[in-house]
Amino acid sequence: MSVLKNDSILRTLRGEKTSYTPSWIMRQAGRYLPEYRATRKNAGSFLELCKNTDFATEVTLQPLDRFPYLDASILFSDILTIPDAMGLGLHFVEGEGPKFSHPLKDESSIQKLDIPNVEEELSYVFQAVKSIKQALNGRVPLIGFAGSPWTLATYMVEGQGGTDFLTIKKMAYARPDLMEHILKITTESVSRYLALQINAGADVVMIFDSWGGVLADREYEPLSLNYMKVIIQNLNLMGYENTPKIIFTKGGGQWLHKQAKSGAQALGVDWQTSLSNARQIVKDKLTLQGNLDPAILLSNPKAIEGAAKAILDDYGIGERHIFNLGHGITQFTPPENVQCLLETIRDYSPQFHI
Amino acid sequence: MSVLKNDSILRTLRGEKTSYTPSWIMRQAGRYLPEYRATRKNAGSFLELCKNTDFATEVTLQPLDRFPYLDASILFSDILTIPDAMGLGLHFVEGEGPKFSHPLKDESSIQKLDIPNVEEELSYVFQAVKSIKQALNGRVPLIGFAGSPWTLATYMVEGQGGTDFLTIKKMAYARPDLMEHILKITTESVSRYLALQINAGADVVMIFDSWGGVLADREYEPLSLNYMKVIIQNLNLMGYENTPKIIFTKGGGQWLHKQAKSGAQALGVDWQTSLSNARQIVKDKLTLQGNLDPAILLSNPKAIEGAAKAILDDYGIGERHIFNLGHGITQFTPPENVQCLLETIRDYSPQFHI
Repeated sequence: MSVLKNDSILRTLRGEKTSYTPSWIMRQAGRYLPEYRATRKNAGSFLELCKNTDFATEVTLQPLDRFPYLDASILFSDILTIPDAMGLGLHFVEGEGPKFSHPLKDESSIQKLDIPNVEEELSYVFQAVKSIKQALNGRVPLIGFAGSPWTLATYMVEGQGGTDFLTIKKMAYARPDLMEHILKITTESVSRYLALQINAGADVVMIFDSWGGVLADREYEPLSLNYMKVIIQNLNLMGYENTPKIIFTKGGGQWLHKQAKSGAQALGVDWQTSLSNARQIVKDKLTLQGNLDPAILLSNPKAIEGAAKAILDDYGIGERHIFNLGHGITQFTPPENVQCLLETIRDYSPQFHI
Repeated sequence: MSVLKNDSILRTLRGEKTSYTPSWIMRQAGRYLPEYRATRKNAGSFLELCKNTDFATEVTLQPLDRFPYLDASILFSDILTIPDAMGLGLHFVEGEGPKFSHPLKDESSIQKLDIPNVEEELSYVFQAVKSIKQALNGRVPLIGFAGSPWTLATYMVEGQGGTDFLTIKKMAYARPDLMEHILKITTESVSRYLALQINAGADVVMIFDSWGGVLADREYEPLSLNYMKVIIQNLNLMGYENTPKIIFTKGGGQWLHKQAKSGAQALGVDWQTSLSNARQIVKDKLTLQGNLDPAILLSNPKAIEGAAKAILDDYGIGERHIFNLGHGITQFTPPENVQCLLETIRDYSPQFHI
């Protein structure tokens, strides 16, 4: 494996000194880029793009070619590959997001749920990781990822995302046994999945807990955080204790003190959270990643510069901040606004690394 | 005006002793009740129901007749009556929620926006307040309400609720002058609206900031909280300083310390927030209202009892807690589960009032 030319993100994840605040952008390879839309057209569907090694490699590298100030790449894939491998029938409806043809609608379908043969069923993902690593040739680290067990379960039970979560919550409250079965199966699957991504070359892994924030205060730990902890423990036991792990519960800013004990090296922070407060909570023992509101990138250079500087000022002098958005970049973002953001970070942040 | 027979909510809002934890339920008059659905059928549309004094009175009292343990009534109406009075053309699409026929889509429509003649255009609301007060005959207090300026603005600009808020956020970041104009006009309108509700008999007023939680940490105060503060100041200046005011920013649990300085006597708390943490933040100087996850009411008596007791335990011994949900009750709730909840609160809470 080639030595990394830019290891600033890895250094920041370890709390080591860098000369500026490193950055990457959630969903940095995506529809806001004309070159992505062109590749997507050739690939066919979103899933076909994910499953094709060459196309997945191509789009993963596109933002790096356009924005030399990006300090990491992230595997082009989807959090729902695991339930798809479990046989739930993932498909994407244009303008409506991901859906499952066979959601877990009754007790018998839940009882039948089993850990898929991750290595075989998801070999296209590990192939993509290998291919991307080769294409990167050490430019920046590659981040692998998976969805959190709770987040995957919401899609698996509700059949789609962005619902009112009443079906899964009713199950969690009325049938905790069924809920636990789904979460355990999913936790084991995600553990194997991330281990194989690391094995294929991923330098960092991130667990996206996109819907952990809908849980009640006293349910977040038992239903989401504890399973993420188990995944981290599993990876450590499998010999991947040196691979940095990031967890990100969107809407979970009130639970950073709990997340700080997860074993992860870094926590994602959405835009509702003050970075300086978050920093006090994690006492500089963990790295924080965030937290620009993606909507700012729809405005203008002056507003973007102001917001980026405010975030860097809020974190202040210190080595444990990775600049990112608080959620995926929207498809309506003009690419030149991303350039403006990244330039602002690179120009303004060295004063905080002294 | 008749003397209140049950003033427990008012006492709790003032921090005075009660013998149990008082409770009411957001959207307690609504589709989960068969008697509501029957009245609604006779009334026609949701808006026709709101605008008809007799029907609005009837449905406001329905939950009180069914659940004798409810300690407050709340005006049956909608937060969007104000933008409707501004001429934006409110209508409800079945299964899709409220929409505006004439959202604020361009600069000229925003510049033309003006404070409506609240007293005249919304006379049906004040008529309903008077009629409900008469029908209540002092049983419990009546809560009046309005949407927060930011929340109303989201509907007015986006044209509907539950969007990604990109249109209004882009405006807020790129054209703060237009954003300010909308918020100022709305703030003045809401101030007059709540004053007239109090004048008609409302014992308490609540400001619903349903979408304040989508704002970035550094935008919440300038774009939402500060305008709620102005409304409270306006009401106090108009002579309504003795009418308790409640503000509730859904998703705003990280900003309770800021809300505590709003001038409100009580803060709504959603289910993501720990009540004991919230209590520490407001230092017992404000009353907290919440915070059951409405989804629990879809489960079973055992789970409901457990969750209600956990909330009462979490708040602990003290006089400044009004039990409520963390959001409106869902239409799928079996009414007997509400009875179970209210009985649990009434049976279990006296130990915290010693």
